[in-house]
Amino acid sequence: MKINYANGVKNDSIKTSKIKSLGMLFENQINLSNEYYLTNNIANIHKKPTPIQVVKVEYPKRSRAKITEAYYRTASTTDYNGIYKGKYIDFEAKETNSNLFPFKNISIHQINHLLSVNKMGGIAFLIIFFRLFNEVYLLDIKDFSNLKDSGDKSISISKISKLGKKVETGYSPLVNYLKTIDNVYFDTKKEG
Amino acid sequence: MKINYANGVKNDSIKTSKIKSLGMLFENQINLSNEYYLTNNIANIHKKPTPIQVVKVEYPKRSRAKITEAYYRTASTTDYNGIYKGKYIDFEAKETNSNLFPFKNISIHQINHLLSVNKMGGIAFLIIFFRLFNEVYLLDIKDFSNLKDSGDKSISISKISKLGKKVETGYSPLVNYLKTIDNVYFDTKKEG
Repeated sequence: MKINYANGVKNDSIKTSKIKSLGMLFENQINLSNEYYLTNNIANIHKKPTPIQVVKVEYPKRSRAKITEAYYRTASTTDYNGIYKGKYIDFEAKETNSNLFPFKNISIHQINHLLSVNKMGGIAFLIIFFRLFNEVYLLDIKDFSNLKDSGDKSISISKISKLGKKVETGYSPLVNYLKTIDNVYFDTKKEG
Repeated sequence: MKINYANGVKNDSIKTSKIKSLGMLFENQINLSNEYYLTNNIANIHKKPTPIQVVKVEYPKRSRAKITEAYYRTASTTDYNGIYKGKYIDFEAKETNSNLFPFKNISIHQINHLLSVNKMGGIAFLIIFFRLFNEVYLLDIKDFSNLKDSGDKSISISKISKLGKKVETGYSPLVNYLKTIDNVYFDTKKEG
């Protein structure tokens, strides 16, 4: 059974417990971080809805339309995009339970989409959560693509820790990836 | 029955017939225009999938997951966003069959979302198709919001033609709204 998180769901009990957050889907940690950014007028970044192909819809009297046959579709773009400091932001968030992230975990469509965004002047990257190590890394799509082209089948946490940038995790926001973006993509005075 | 257009569907017979295009859902005209922009490396702008809340999923043996109960959800953001000339673009596309566009046709969530994007330095607007007149207009979200705040219930085509900017329609792309964006938001030499 696929677990479906409603968009914008408030879950303060999860928010306030770091222990619990480790068991939370990484995607949901990013969603809560985005909520924090939006509420504080820092950035406007959202998860796109999962693409679903609807085949059959019923219209029961006195109630809302009910979809009775539908299928998940492959996403042609990434899960997340939005605006931060006037710049277009686009990324995919992934997690792995080992010390390796296999390249096949991201579709070629998504990589090409991110490369296109990069070419057009947007900020395009991957955020990868190594659950075993409780470490999150941000890796620019160009670096990721170059590595993939080199012929390897996966990227190790030790390699990503050199090539990418570690993302601070904590309470609010849970995954502070915009701070990492400041360091990697913006000319900011060092804040640590 | 709701008509569902698959993303990225190619329909050249529609593309090449302006007569037919008038009967096409406006949304689909925008989607085809975005395909044109993407193919020609002009912009990377996509329609977000319709948000659907999945309640029940079945996993028949030897076949893909089948969703057997789901419901349409209200969108918290807009239908379209992406990148053009390095800038974040966000808009909602609407159509009307009269000479008036009623403000209630756009949700307050969507207006607030567009105002937030505008505040953060993005390009945020509405594209409205007046089907009876076969005319398309682009209206900046600030202008739209000011009008709405003035107490009117709708905006007429004559008012929008003064306050907004007419969008050229033709063959490729069907709805050339990026040319309008050039005129409204970028310092470009006059191209007409």
